[in-house]
Amino acid sequence: MKNQVTPWEVKGEVDYGKLIKEFGLEKIDKKLLERIKKNAGEVHFMLRRGVFFAHRDMNWLLDEYEKGNKFFLYTGCGPSGPIHLGHLQTWYFTKWLQDKFDCELWFQFTDDEKFLFKDKSYKEIQDWMYENMLDIIAVGFNPKKTHFLIDTKHAGLIYPEAIKVAKKITFSMVKSSFGFNESNNIGEIFFTSVQAVPAFLPSVLEKKEIPCLIPHAVDQDPHFRLTRDILPKLGHYRPASIQCPFLPPLTGNEGKMSSSESAKAILSTDNEKTVAAKINKYAFSGGKDTIEEHRKKGGNPDIDVSFQYLRMMLEDNDEKLAEIYRDYKSGKMLTSELKQITIEKLNFALKRHQQEREKARKQIDKFISI
Amino acid sequence: MKNQVTPWEVKGEVDYGKLIKEFGLEKIDKKLLERIKKNAGEVHFMLRRGVFFAHRDMNWLLDEYEKGNKFFLYTGCGPSGPIHLGHLQTWYFTKWLQDKFDCELWFQFTDDEKFLFKDKSYKEIQDWMYENMLDIIAVGFNPKKTHFLIDTKHAGLIYPEAIKVAKKITFSMVKSSFGFNESNNIGEIFFTSVQAVPAFLPSVLEKKEIPCLIPHAVDQDPHFRLTRDILPKLGHYRPASIQCPFLPPLTGNEGKMSSSESAKAILSTDNEKTVAAKINKYAFSGGKDTIEEHRKKGGNPDIDVSFQYLRMMLEDNDEKLAEIYRDYKSGKMLTSELKQITIEKLNFALKRHQQEREKARKQIDKFISI
Repeated sequence: MKNQVTPWEVKGEVDYGKLIKEFGLEKIDKKLLERIKKNAGEVHFMLRRGVFFAHRDMNWLLDEYEKGNKFFLYTGCGPSGPIHLGHLQTWYFTKWLQDKFDCELWFQFTDDEKFLFKDKSYKEIQDWMYENMLDIIAVGFNPKKTHFLIDTKHAGLIYPEAIKVAKKITFSMVKSSFGFNESNNIGEIFFTSVQAVPAFLPSVLEKKEIPCLIPHAVDQDPHFRLTRDILPKLGHYRPASIQCPFLPPLTGNEGKMSSSESAKAILSTDNEKTVAAKINKYAFSGGKDTIEEHRKKGGNPDIDVSFQYLRMMLEDNDEKLAEIYRDYKSGKMLTSELKQITIEKLNFALKRHQQEREKARKQIDKFISI
Repeated sequence: MKNQVTPWEVKGEVDYGKLIKEFGLEKIDKKLLERIKKNAGEVHFMLRRGVFFAHRDMNWLLDEYEKGNKFFLYTGCGPSGPIHLGHLQTWYFTKWLQDKFDCELWFQFTDDEKFLFKDKSYKEIQDWMYENMLDIIAVGFNPKKTHFLIDTKHAGLIYPEAIKVAKKITFSMVKSSFGFNESNNIGEIFFTSVQAVPAFLPSVLEKKEIPCLIPHAVDQDPHFRLTRDILPKLGHYRPASIQCPFLPPLTGNEGKMSSSESAKAILSTDNEKTVAAKINKYAFSGGKDTIEEHRKKGGNPDIDVSFQYLRMMLEDNDEKLAEIYRDYKSGKMLTSELKQITIEKLNFALKRHQQEREKARKQIDKFISI
């Protein structure tokens, strides 16, 4: 299967090395990790392990930070279904950035995008947005420094800026960036200019340029490549960005976890039994066909989805992770045992998440007060 | 010159008979005029003389009106330059509709459109918008029943509805409606969905369907044809509409009066001397080359621009107009005399307009309070 990565489609096994070249990203190197450590006091395991693997202009961002010019964070959520592990992974890292760099966070809800691109009603999207907000609050972002920006509700702020971006982007440009054709609706065509706005809206509101860092899964990169081309023409900074891959779906390393195929995804609201059943039944395994063969030849953690979840988001302890890796590879650990570890880690994280999610119902207003 | 009519370009001499066919409009007939008279108590001279010459669904609108379902009016202004006679003509008629049918009027300012389509800065467009508002207020619309809807300022109301329209319109559709190509910017491409919104926004706000009538110059028709196709799919009424031609520029019956060529236009702020100079110097005449020849063979009022201004908007008395027509045609009236009548009428109207325009500076807030 040809690999294909746009904000609306991730097909096939993704070659991240190739993506770095194609998208013109920079790999995160040791020197940058040291700089981050110097400023943040630590390096998040997702950085150490190369889960967040690429960036743009992080060195410029840290130059500014070291000069005393704080940056703000911008990330987002397209509300069209339940939240899954793939979302949480990026947001856990985003929360770490907020905590360590004491950042304002602008959280965009692209309810317009999801309405325009999906065969769903306006009402359905609004309902999902409410549900998604609960998950985002549950992640633990600082309510005093986090601003929910809703594309429809806050269009009064966004649209006047979006048209300034739109004036610089032709149909040919979105055609080549997103693979659009003449059958795309005119809202879809316009949308990328809306996604550009949070990268400079705080600067407009504060009437001074503030550096911006966008942590995001790499499929959103086509938007931000365009954004980076346009913003200097409008007198704004280019946003820096830091990219992670997609968390693989349960079924293996092709495509990305997606809530529209909920059997292939662990959802934030899945209960203990469901999590266990999904991992046991679906999680693609790097183990051998029989226990005997597994004991003899060992498993392959590199393609094992349960292991990838541990590595990418659930097990922050490097030594423990290395031990699991060795034991699974040598055959000492069976697939069922590996899955059990993942299930426990997942259920531990989700139990806490679900408790926070309930409390979040009373907190939404604090986050929408722009 | 091939005739061409889109919202952004009117070239050549326009064949309105052909336009009725091409655009699928209905001609305003005697029966409809009688129905309007029955309800309004009179028939405006622009209707009697066929200046407003075509319509869509006026009979349905009057059916509803006669059942007690009042309609609202929707018209607009693209703020990118000074107001000229062509604008005032449509608005005089719109005011008459508002007065006679006791209507709410939603007045859209497409500041986004003008920013997106013109080589002008955001600031320039905002400044022109303020100036244009003064002219619109000066026309005398009822401040209690007139709502200025500004595309950027009121995007919070407009954008959530515009995306519902946009989802039903593809690039192919705007390509064929407006002659767009791949070099158009993505804001231009999206814009028609914004222009559709005022036709149903009052229904959304009131949570019940209210019939809408759009009085407009015929170049805006491609927008409203699309609007009429889409609205029933969103559960809204199709707006009715009533069309006038373009007021000809001073230089003759080709194209339309436009403020971007201000030497060819009479502006709302022109003083008495300027008006006299423009009419005397530029107004295309139907007279003969010499006074002798004119006296003998007579002039042609049908191509005389001064006469057209009298007929289309300045002389409401049919008998007086007929007398001027006869006298000019017979040669009894010279071009200089005809021009003098037009100059006096214009200066009388503009003097009053300019006085009201000054008073309007203090009234703007009343009109923007949505």
